[in-house]
Amino acid sequence: MAETTLRSRSRTVTIGPGHPVAVIGERLNPTGRRVLSQELARGEMRLVRREALAQAEAGAALLDVNVGLPGADQARLMRAVVEALQETTDLPLCLDSADAGVLDAGLGAYGGRALVNSVTGEEHALAEVLPVVQAHGAAVIALPMDDSGIPDTAEGRLRVAERILERAALVGIAAEDVVIDPLTMAVGADSASARVTLDTISLLHRHLGLNVTLGVSNVSHGLPARTALNATFVAMALALGATCPILNPLEAGMMQAVRAANLCLGYDDWASGWIRAFRAARRSGGEA
Amino acid sequence: MAETTLRSRSRTVTIGPGHPVAVIGERLNPTGRRVLSQELARGEMRLVRREALAQAEAGAALLDVNVGLPGADQARLMRAVVEALQETTDLPLCLDSADAGVLDAGLGAYGGRALVNSVTGEEHALAEVLPVVQAHGAAVIALPMDDSGIPDTAEGRLRVAERILERAALVGIAAEDVVIDPLTMAVGADSASARVTLDTISLLHRHLGLNVTLGVSNVSHGLPARTALNATFVAMALALGATCPILNPLEAGMMQAVRAANLCLGYDDWASGWIRAFRAARRSGGEA
Repeated sequence: MAETTLRSRSRTVTIGPGHPVAVIGERLNPTGRRVLSQELARGEMRLVRREALAQAEAGAALLDVNVGLPGADQARLMRAVVEALQETTDLPLCLDSADAGVLDAGLGAYGGRALVNSVTGEEHALAEVLPVVQAHGAAVIALPMDDSGIPDTAEGRLRVAERILERAALVGIAAEDVVIDPLTMAVGADSASARVTLDTISLLHRHLGLNVTLGVSNVSHGLPARTALNATFVAMALALGATCPILNPLEAGMMQAVRAANLCLGYDDWASGWIRAFRAARRSGGEA
Repeated sequence: MAETTLRSRSRTVTIGPGHPVAVIGERLNPTGRRVLSQELARGEMRLVRREALAQAEAGAALLDVNVGLPGADQARLMRAVVEALQETTDLPLCLDSADAGVLDAGLGAYGGRALVNSVTGEEHALAEVLPVVQAHGAAVIALPMDDSGIPDTAEGRLRVAERILERAALVGIAAEDVVIDPLTMAVGADSASARVTLDTISLLHRHLGLNVTLGVSNVSHGLPARTALNATFVAMALALGATCPILNPLEAGMMQAVRAANLCLGYDDWASGWIRAFRAARRSGGEA
């Protein structure tokens, strides 16, 4: 099984079996967030810094950074956010854009080894994003969709993932530096979709042995009791071999599920992390 | 993949992939329960009936029946409880005893097809329990431990399960009528134990393709925030192929995790079960 290593200037995070679950915090994203959008549009970094610190405190191992603000100079904004985050937190970053120029700007400003989110199997993405990832010595998340769309079976997604890996190898990116995202859709819109995601994780785990991430909260889009559904879904994904889920670490129920999964996977000796979190929650009057 | 069919006089329950998770309700057990113990000692069935109805209402598919009361005539008590339950509920029963005579008495009183909990790989258990199971046309839960104890690896447990299956076949019990329990121990006492249970489920699922049960709450013995840990653990077990967990259906968090798992496994079309449970919980002021 492969290990993927990411670094900030002062901290190294290794993702892989044998290591506790590495949560990628999803909060640095202006989509649907008015105040964060307004601050980013003005170039202010107050909320960016606050969200980074809160996610680190809650137990995130990496921070996703999305500056997808319509109308903004996203390359410049990505650079500014990366610089602000490097002054604020020692968590490695996951730079989230489909635009190779935005990624290049962010990676150029980053004094560590970032994860890029993401490259698809679409020809233009392969041609544009992979060279940028390689040039900066970064790692990359691969989304198994291509110019024909998203395969609706686990086997189809495995095949696209394999093609992305071949193309990555051609430009000099090692397999262990490719993290696969099986793609998670809303189960409320298609009752079979979560099963396909879980089956894809299982297949990826057995056939490729690479790290697997997933955007957990997509599964519950449009449904009630989202955190409860997300918490069960992430537990299932982690059982099948996902290692670095993207989620909101500020939701107590999500981090509780991650801690429980770490304990059940043998990554919490003497249950000390579980017990410590319970005591901390009791002191603060919240959930364990 | 095998299907196991259980029946009460009027209801058939099929366990297996392709069917929603079949929860085996664990509440009919006097261990550590003073009032239930006292009633059973007097031959009273008031609480037995109430627990059966409450578990059925909460969504159990089968009811485990344990009459392990020290000093009691357990064969007589099992017969009386089985008779009372048949008047009370149409859920099929899972008769829980290590004593072949107690099982024989209960199965003799039962007008359906019960699940027997359980037979181990110990020579005396194989010799005594399997013929009783076969004589009554029942199904049986196999615990992969033998006269040498409990294997501490998934591979070791698989081998014992295979030996139990061979012995069951010799007396005429079909493989699909054997449900395997991977054995769940307290993860607080041994940090590796839950992982061995999960790895065993995965191995059993791939190599035998039989139904898998597990006593979920054992995992959290001695730890705080037990329901949260149990809920994550059962989600992980269900992802790996467990189909009929033994748990307390009166804990809202457990049934919520089971409903979420059903949805993620593709057994809840249009998320209608998930949405219905959310609305019912909101009406009654509880959790989804």
